[in-house]
Amino acid sequence: MRQAFQGHGASRGSALGRARVRLPATLDVLEEHIPADAVDAELDRVHDAISRVRTEMHALRGRLHGALAHEVGEFLDLHALLLDDPELLQGLDDLIRQNAYSADYALKLQRDRIAAVFEAMDDAYFRSRVEDIDQVIGRVRAALHSHDGEPRGRAGDILVCETIAPAELAQLQSEGVLAVVTTQGSPLSHTAILARSLHLPLIVSASLALQKLNDGDVLCVDGGSGTVVLEPDADDLREHRERVRDHARERRQLNRLRREPSRTLDGVDIRLWANAESREDVAEAHALGAAGVGLYRTEFLFLQRSELPDEEEQFRAYRDLVLGMTGRTVTIRTLDLGADKADRAGLALRHEPNPALGLRGVRLSLANSHLFDVQLRALLRASDYGPVRILVPMITTREEIVGVRARIDRLAAQLRSEGHQIADEVPLGAMIEVPAAALALPGYIDDIDFLSIGTNDLVQYLLAADRNNDALGDLYTPLHPALLRMLRGVIRRANARGKQVAVCGEIAGDTRFTALLLALGLSEFSLHPGLLLEVRHTVRHCDLARLRAAAPSLMRARDRADILDWLRTNTVA
Amino acid sequence: MRQAFQGHGASRGSALGRARVRLPATLDVLEEHIPADAVDAELDRVHDAISRVRTEMHALRGRLHGALAHEVGEFLDLHALLLDDPELLQGLDDLIRQNAYSADYALKLQRDRIAAVFEAMDDAYFRSRVEDIDQVIGRVRAALHSHDGEPRGRAGDILVCETIAPAELAQLQSEGVLAVVTTQGSPLSHTAILARSLHLPLIVSASLALQKLNDGDVLCVDGGSGTVVLEPDADDLREHRERVRDHARERRQLNRLRREPSRTLDGVDIRLWANAESREDVAEAHALGAAGVGLYRTEFLFLQRSELPDEEEQFRAYRDLVLGMTGRTVTIRTLDLGADKADRAGLALRHEPNPALGLRGVRLSLANSHLFDVQLRALLRASDYGPVRILVPMITTREEIVGVRARIDRLAAQLRSEGHQIADEVPLGAMIEVPAAALALPGYIDDIDFLSIGTNDLVQYLLAADRNNDALGDLYTPLHPALLRMLRGVIRRANARGKQVAVCGEIAGDTRFTALLLALGLSEFSLHPGLLLEVRHTVRHCDLARLRAAAPSLMRARDRADILDWLRTNTVA
Repeated sequence: MRQAFQGHGASRGSALGRARVRLPATLDVLEEHIPADAVDAELDRVHDAISRVRTEMHALRGRLHGALAHEVGEFLDLHALLLDDPELLQGLDDLIRQNAYSADYALKLQRDRIAAVFEAMDDAYFRSRVEDIDQVIGRVRAALHSHDGEPRGRAGDILVCETIAPAELAQLQSEGVLAVVTTQGSPLSHTAILARSLHLPLIVSASLALQKLNDGDVLCVDGGSGTVVLEPDADDLREHRERVRDHARERRQLNRLRREPSRTLDGVDIRLWANAESREDVAEAHALGAAGVGLYRTEFLFLQRSELPDEEEQFRAYRDLVLGMTGRTVTIRTLDLGADKADRAGLALRHEPNPALGLRGVRLSLANSHLFDVQLRALLRASDYGPVRILVPMITTREEIVGVRARIDRLAAQLRSEGHQIADEVPLGAMIEVPAAALALPGYIDDIDFLSIGTNDLVQYLLAADRNNDALGDLYTPLHPALLRMLRGVIRRANARGKQVAVCGEIAGDTRFTALLLALGLSEFSLHPGLLLEVRHTVRHCDLARLRAAAPSLMRARDRADILDWLRTNTVA
Repeated sequence: MRQAFQGHGASRGSALGRARVRLPATLDVLEEHIPADAVDAELDRVHDAISRVRTEMHALRGRLHGALAHEVGEFLDLHALLLDDPELLQGLDDLIRQNAYSADYALKLQRDRIAAVFEAMDDAYFRSRVEDIDQVIGRVRAALHSHDGEPRGRAGDILVCETIAPAELAQLQSEGVLAVVTTQGSPLSHTAILARSLHLPLIVSASLALQKLNDGDVLCVDGGSGTVVLEPDADDLREHRERVRDHARERRQLNRLRREPSRTLDGVDIRLWANAESREDVAEAHALGAAGVGLYRTEFLFLQRSELPDEEEQFRAYRDLVLGMTGRTVTIRTLDLGADKADRAGLALRHEPNPALGLRGVRLSLANSHLFDVQLRALLRASDYGPVRILVPMITTREEIVGVRARIDRLAAQLRSEGHQIADEVPLGAMIEVPAAALALPGYIDDIDFLSIGTNDLVQYLLAADRNNDALGDLYTPLHPALLRMLRGVIRRANARGKQVAVCGEIAGDTRFTALLLALGLSEFSLHPGLLLEVRHTVRHCDLARLRAAAPSLMRARDRADILDWLRTNTVA
């Protein structure tokens, strides 16, 4: 019988398929022995499973790119480490060989042994690492039970589970999974962001899903509205087909916008920059008519390697980027790492109790001036191949900007005296992501050439809410009056002084916020190239004069509900 | 020959004494055997040393109170755990018994073994724990070499070292140490704050001290100016005696202010509240004529115990506080713990990568509503014994305030129906320590009765700078134009709506900032009772009209240097 229930739509798209239910992992295995003559085969089984998990994780790693490689890769690296732990491997062998335990039971015993070591540390951090162990052991166990490489998701399935890691989404999609429904999670999570960029429908917080659904149930899900329908009827199927048709038409329409201007209904041109991390991103940005690259993250040159890239290597990377944009401006952000990531870039830094509030971004660069000089020299040299802007992350004080400017001037003189050509103008910009930098802007706006507002971190600091901390529920949100005030203040000030200002956080690529940002006076957006056409489409349906007239009512919003009201009234379809 | 050099004055006071130089700890011990018949004595020596360190740490713990117990106690607890580790103890015994190693060498081997385990974890956090191991091993080693309990500081000494832990200061002072000079550290550190409250002279960042000074050198140090004089001459000694005399006179003068009003030169009364944590604080606040208690921290009822305090226990604590202030208002802050501390209050929470941006303050209370209800009921019941205000920490959104208000109304009705008496008015206030709460104030000011600005956390979030992270150097500072703007905005808005607003962070008790806060329009300060007379003295020398007239020039400050200039021009002696 038809039954419908609601979750939160986290990634648009409609899917019709069979439920594949994944219950939360547990590891309740009773003591289990195998015949003595089966020991060798059992050892082979375990080794094979571990090697398949290793390959699987390596492949997963390879499929990740951009910011996600950055965030998710870290967990994969930790898991790979655990998987290669000689004690784990030797212990498994010993248990199977000496006690003729089944692979499952040996796995459970080893899991318990390692977990006991962590748990005995009597420290919340150590205890939390047990979760990672369980995830790795879980993967090995799953591999043990899929002997012939049977895929864990099947084409045509709609996966129903408690939570899903961002790293898994790409794999599921490549296996043909149509959509994912989770009982937990938030539409603002990394999982949700990745699902949207993959165009994989995702519904989160469908709390009833695991109770109501069984393996093989026929489902129709709408990632836009968050509706899950069990045993859809004729009306549901018709609506599904309409949604699929609409979606396809929408894609076709968007594709027609590739050569159109990003111009509002009342004829104002909005500049859409691309955030780019890879050669593919740059090519896509170019093809879709981005104004240029608004944010090129240089961390990727530094991560996953044992030695730091030298000036020549960096110079070539930046030069190729500049050449790839054939004369359009590229904005290159200097290294933006913190202590939580720096060790993966060969920079051994002290552990910090709160890395988000620690030595990161320009602070790290200024504390490692040799590293910083090498990067700035490479950037300056690339400026001879096309327009380059230098963007500095985590600016907090005027002193930092003044110090960076002096350093650039000194290095430019040095390079010229060495015979290098450097552009006459290499604009210097500040990332506005620390609240103090936004509030103190009047004191240093004349010391910079342009601004880029990083709303992801800005919201995090403004609300003192770690965006990756699930325990906070929906506390982390851009829908806060404080963010609106801060954005309006920065944009107004920049516009008044004729300084270019862009927003480069997630909200710049989220069409739900396009009208809001335009109302606040923003005329430059920097976003993932995959979202460029959608935002262009939305911009072309906005009446800027009307939105700006609605700004005062937006500024009167007292809370999230008021902002949502404003968005409902002022957002174009 | 006389030599003078500079550090930063971190705690005022003048001292004349002999240098006691403590070089940075290292543990370079060569393999060293003892005669077989000395093994038992060596074992006794080690056991005795460990037990003395244990007693020492326990005693240290007992001497700490208030916020410091909170912060420092955590490290002591971890060290106590390491010290009790059976593997460490058994390993030492085995090494000495089986190999006839000296205690020192056995200690080194065990240190290296444990450190290797941590270092092998390939994770910056685990590696950083090696520092804790070294500190514990260092303590044991020091105890090994002070057989007859010889004190580690001597009366009349001036300790010269690289850094010093806050926990050590109280012990040093009780041993008669006159002053401390460190080559590192900041005047804003916890160590500096504790030194000031202990009135122990402290000079930090005297980078030359360890090069220039030797054990037994005669020194004259001035914790006000940061000057260290080696082999002082007659002029230095005269100046020292003058400083000592001035200081004594100052204390006498301050004591005369106990019954005087906190009134500016132009006749405006400023309200000085006390921050209080203990019975002694409350008694002192009362004796010194505090307007009331502006901040009573309730965490201390919750920490260091295995079960949570019930309603009755909390009620009695709050009631006694109210009775202790004999009719003056007491402001009680609801539980302000985060995941980094909650496990010590019997609340098992998940480890958070950034606890400062996590589930803390009102977020934790709202997520543990039973806990919160118990506390609110106890607070409401105490209101029948004298004026009580409820202050809620970490407010970020209007929704939280509205939710807390509704909860209080419901509990009050419930209590009345159970026959309890509750005051008609129990004002509800918000801590302003999250930047978003400051910026969004216009949207909820009508929903609250009063405000208290927690500048310590506010600066931390505003500048995205963990105040406890030494790697950030002097980035954490209230001397930032952004803080001034934010304070002025909140104070103006509150004054315009007739809502009481106090500042309760460190700067409220720091006379260097009194003029600045008055210029911004503040008329309520909440501070440690030990600082009340000094601030009253400063207030009585301020001309409020003149300071308010100087506010516009303060608001034009672009950076730290500009603010310091303003302070130099506008601060009274």
